[in-house]
Amino acid sequence: MGNTFGTLFRVTTWGESHGPAIGVVIDGCPAGLPLTEEDIQKDLDKRKPGNALASPRAEKDKVRILSGLFEGKTTGAPLSLMIENKDVDSSAYEPIKNIVRPGHANSTYLAKYGLFDYRGGGRASGRETACRVAAGAIAKKILQLFSISFHTRLVEAGGESDIEAAIRAAQREGDSIGGIIELITSPLPIGLGDPVFDKLEANIAKAVLSIPASKGIEFGSGFAGARMKGSEYNDLFINGSFQSNNAGGTLGGISNGMPLHFRAAFKPTSSIKKDQASSTLEGEATTFSLPSHSRHDPCLAMRAVIVVEAMTALVLVDALLRNETAKLTYIQAT
Amino acid sequence: MGNTFGTLFRVTTWGESHGPAIGVVIDGCPAGLPLTEEDIQKDLDKRKPGNALASPRAEKDKVRILSGLFEGKTTGAPLSLMIENKDVDSSAYEPIKNIVRPGHANSTYLAKYGLFDYRGGGRASGRETACRVAAGAIAKKILQLFSISFHTRLVEAGGESDIEAAIRAAQREGDSIGGIIELITSPLPIGLGDPVFDKLEANIAKAVLSIPASKGIEFGSGFAGARMKGSEYNDLFINGSFQSNNAGGTLGGISNGMPLHFRAAFKPTSSIKKDQASSTLEGEATTFSLPSHSRHDPCLAMRAVIVVEAMTALVLVDALLRNETAKLTYIQAT
Amino acid sequence: MGNTFGTLFRVTTWGESHGPAIGVVIDGCPAGLPLTEEDIQKDLDKRKPGNALASPRAEKDKVRILSGLFEGKTTGAPLSLMIENKDVDSSAYEPIKNIVRPGHANSTYLAKYGLFDYRGGGRASGRETACRVAAGAIAKKILQLFSISFHTRLVEAGGESDIEAAIRAAQREGDSIGGIIELITSPLPIGLGDPVFDKLEANIAKAVLSIPASKGIEFGSGFAGARMKGSEYNDLFINGSFQSNNAGGTLGGISNGMPLHFRAAFKPTSSIKKDQASSTLEGEATTFSLPSHSRHDPCLAMRAVIVVEAMTALVLVDALLRNETAKLTYIQAT
Amino acid sequence: MGNTFGTLFRVTTWGESHGPAIGVVIDGCPAGLPLTEEDIQKDLDKRKPGNALASPRAEKDKVRILSGLFEGKTTGAPLSLMIENKDVDSSAYEPIKNIVRPGHANSTYLAKYGLFDYRGGGRASGRETACRVAAGAIAKKILQLFSISFHTRLVEAGGESDIEAAIRAAQREGDSIGGIIELITSPLPIGLGDPVFDKLEANIAKAVLSIPASKGIEFGSGFAGARMKGSEYNDLFINGSFQSNNAGGTLGGISNGMPLHFRAAFKPTSSIKKDQASSTLEGEATTFSLPSHSRHDPCLAMRAVIVVEAMTALVLVDALLRNETAKLTYIQAT
Repeated sequence: MGNTFGTLFRVTTWGESHGPAIGVVIDGCPAGLPLTEEDIQKDLDKRKPGNALASPRAEKDKVRILSGLFEGKTTGAPLSLMIENKDVDSSAYEPIKNIVRPGHANSTYLAKYGLFDYRGGGRASGRETACRVAAGAIAKKILQLFSISFHTRLVEAGGESDIEAAIRAAQREGDSIGGIIELITSPLPIGLGDPVFDKLEANIAKAVLSIPASKGIEFGSGFAGARMKGSEYNDLFINGSFQSNNAGGTLGGISNGMPLHFRAAFKPTSSIKKDQASSTLEGEATTFSLPSHSRHDPCLAMRAVIVVEAMTALVLVDALLRNETAKLTYIQAT
Repeated sequence: MGNTFGTLFRVTTWGESHGPAIGVVIDGCPAGLPLTEEDIQKDLDKRKPGNALASPRAEKDKVRILSGLFEGKTTGAPLSLMIENKDVDSSAYEPIKNIVRPGHANSTYLAKYGLFDYRGGGRASGRETACRVAAGAIAKKILQLFSISFHTRLVEAGGESDIEAAIRAAQREGDSIGGIIELITSPLPIGLGDPVFDKLEANIAKAVLSIPASKGIEFGSGFAGARMKGSEYNDLFINGSFQSNNAGGTLGGISNGMPLHFRAAFKPTSSIKKDQASSTLEGEATTFSLPSHSRHDPCLAMRAVIVVEAMTALVLVDALLRNETAKLTYIQAT
Repeated sequence: MGNTFGTLFRVTTWGESHGPAIGVVIDGCPAGLPLTEEDIQKDLDKRKPGNALASPRAEKDKVRILSGLFEGKTTGAPLSLMIENKDVDSSAYEPIKNIVRPGHANSTYLAKYGLFDYRGGGRASGRETACRVAAGAIAKKILQLFSISFHTRLVEAGGESDIEAAIRAAQREGDSIGGIIELITSPLPIGLGDPVFDKLEANIAKAVLSIPASKGIEFGSGFAGARMKGSEYNDLFINGSFQSNNAGGTLGGISNGMPLHFRAAFKPTSSIKKDQASSTLEGEATTFSLPSHSRHDPCLAMRAVIVVEAMTALVLVDALLRNETAKLTYIQAT
Repeated sequence: MGNTFGTLFRVTTWGESHGPAIGVVIDGCPAGLPLTEEDIQKDLDKRKPGNALASPRAEKDKVRILSGLFEGKTTGAPLSLMIENKDVDSSAYEPIKNIVRPGHANSTYLAKYGLFDYRGGGRASGRETACRVAAGAIAKKILQLFSISFHTRLVEAGGESDIEAAIRAAQREGDSIGGIIELITSPLPIGLGDPVFDKLEANIAKAVLSIPASKGIEFGSGFAGARMKGSEYNDLFINGSFQSNNAGGTLGGISNGMPLHFRAAFKPTSSIKKDQASSTLEGEATTFSLPSHSRHDPCLAMRAVIVVEAMTALVLVDALLRNETAKLTYIQAT
């Protein structure tokens, strides 16, 4: 349970960081969408690290489409995408398997399931997000047909707006920093999102807060808006257009024709190259730090940019499809 | 679609602000829970306004349990709760039915559905949240059996911590203010929440962002945490307990034995007693303000406190029930 | 759990036979459908007994629409329908509450839930089907717009085709008989139903087998078809039309333009006026027969006709709505 | 949509007959189940043809477990199983791609989706059922822990009980025959199945009718029971046990401690080696027969035996897991 997302455009991910492969099955993609592996690879490559500003692990994520495509178009059948895990070396995890690693999920998984695939974080690894990016790339292809595009970026890292400098400094110190990601879409069509529990921002909040390391989200003026007066906050509708976007693009949970706009907070990477006090699973005091030769990603938020975009795209496509049955006049004779 | 929440403990709400009644059906409540109407009424009364610090509408919400109960205990059958709408007068909405009311959902509903029950906000009304509070009261009865309790309060109104003064000032001005609600539970049992998409904070984010007027949520140190370093942020586990709760009570989306802790941002009430520029649905310029004799609720966030608590309780009960099948050793011979 | 049916057109029923009311919430009905209580009452009246050929209980089922309607049209919000239980007298159930009534569900409910609302069968009562009929009436209103109509009837009772005579005989004897219901639609539009698990006949099989007392279903030539050769069975497509309908209207789980055609088997009514050996819940030997003055329905299958039609209508509307997103060319800019 | 089955034990299948692979993702399998590829392979091999009594295609289905397993036990993470398609030659389908093949789904898929992977039946191929068998094997491993076992067999082929002779005769004639499969479990624990819509037989009916070529199902005495009197039909409960099993193992949709018992009807294989009149997709008259050198499976029902068993196992495991939250006294502190 919990590995499927969406109502009509349904995405199910599987696979562990250090298993033979990871993958995603997409059920509910409408038939007739032109699609190539390259369409997906493009977004995966944005997630791939390999430079000074992210983890130097050379992941070489190569996606394969195993089903659901015929003569270059989706058929309405489930799309199965697979990415093999290459260069996997689990030996580094053997010595630390009994340590409660600060900020990591090994202790909670162990308590919940009674056993834990400790190699590379197993299912809790950020690697799983590659599958979301792959699915999101397909969602974005559909959204393009409705002229919906994204502007998503890291606007703050470690509290600084000079993001590159902040990341380099953290890397030098062997420490890590969090970050804030902002997403703004082109103006959305009016009508996406469903009252009551499936409001557009509710589903996006779930989508974004399901990304590892995410810790908050705010729409439009968000927390700052909670400190405004109504007379300042309300987005006035004059001469056929809204004069501001404090609401972030929705009214009553339904897109109002403005850009969708939100910011998401990501915590600092948990694994750092500094000693941190901890315990073994048996309760003995110990310390933990990433071995000096280990891959170290000083700011996971940077890699999360494309994941936030992917998850948002999944919600928007789902909302678009669900909207097809909102009005009787939409329903067509088949 | 969109009027049901939850996987195993499923809540479906119905009803409009100015219809004959509103209600909620709860499916999946385990059999054997002692329950009375009074258990529910207690929480509904916390939502009821009637004093200077909230809307003076005397709602007299009286809940009735129509099914699912036998000799004072739940039977495993759906619980149907109903609250009649009393003292409903829709005449005030007639003259303003063609105005795009600032901050309101009438324009988006109209676009989405082609028609709109404009009386009192219809389905978009905050009145729907009474059903959530009723369902949440039942969820809280179950959680009590597992010693889970809540501490939920408005910690900021209009940017001020002297909340009562801020609300009185807004009321005097005919304006409105937003607010920030904080929820802290008692320490949760370890293991609630499911990877990957149904992380505990993901489902709570959806739950809270589905409440009318909510605009943001942050867990633990939230946005501030995104500005910390990993060496400051990580909650160290020493001598069998966490030394801090920057994560807000989860690791990998699963409760870690600490209190769940989050803050939610609510925008200012949209309807105010000041003139706001707007348009008619036909596009003509006009202004809108609440008529001077109208009920005016200067800070909806205050009423939302019990709703936030209810939605959180729904997520926690659902997670608790879902956790019953996480391990093979849990499954019992029937 | 288990009280909701459908994916996009979602129906949730609640209520016990001897509680204050029963009801149904319909979520996902497209906006803009003209609807009155009379539209629903018409079908409920077909289910109402009151003559020699069915149970003489005068149920006076009066349906009320409590939400989701505005100025005579559906709004896209959930429709809540309620039927009050009148003339309920539970005293007759007191003396038999500890008897395992032959063919009844009291023992299984008791084992499953640990307690049981024994009055009138509680949730297991056939009375719950009134809610399905009410929801089905709305589904049929939608199907009419697509020229889909139903021909549903009891074709066999107690093995006889002279149904009226068979029922009168059973009534005289204080015994009961089963029956076979046949449903044939007008030719369906091509394309309803989804591979793989949501084939049209799979969803209809579930819908029909969820009706109390149903024990079998067969599509087209059904069990007899399993005794044919392929050369006899295949429905040949010549000059633009199928020459037979052994398949019952589907190919690969998708409607093929022919009428949907199936038969469903219903067991004899469990409660009869003859002594039947049984046990108490404590295991003591006893006998059970309906008290001589009790309402006795010699052939429940007769009342099930409209229920079978309703459940089929629910499946077809759901399939129709789901089909809206099958092809990319169907998706419309909003 | 439609490629996922189950509520808590959720199975999603993907893949086409002539694509690179087929597979299944199982989400919701409790952690701690010992599992090997061999456990699954054993059931797949029962489905594999290769003798005179079934299609001579040498499928060499080799299953791989790609995720969800650690040190020989399930981890609670999704299990991804994959079977490569070997020896695939799609050239035979090129010449017949424009023919409405009698009994096949190509015309309905084409109408529904606007395009069709005609090679080997694409998604509509019986090959998809290998994934169900694989998932079912895992479900059966769980059921074994609760002492639930299956006795499933073809009881009739082409109307004959000498099944082998009937199949050989059909093969000689180049024709095909249908069959009837009977499944009887060991006595089930009491309490499986949920009122109202998720009755045990409702979910099994859906499960079985979703298997390609299935056309009917009847529980216990089924259609024959519809011709009995209540005084004959009722399963009397005397001295702590039921004296008969006309109901097929359920009361009110919940298992009653007796064996689950049903029969399912399968139509004759559609593709035969005799000329059958048909049309091209463009409407021109033509004939179709399987080329003389083609693989020909005279009685698909024989291969369906293990599929029926697998689908039933999926429903039973799901019911078992769902039952864990039926009673408050079941819920455990974590």
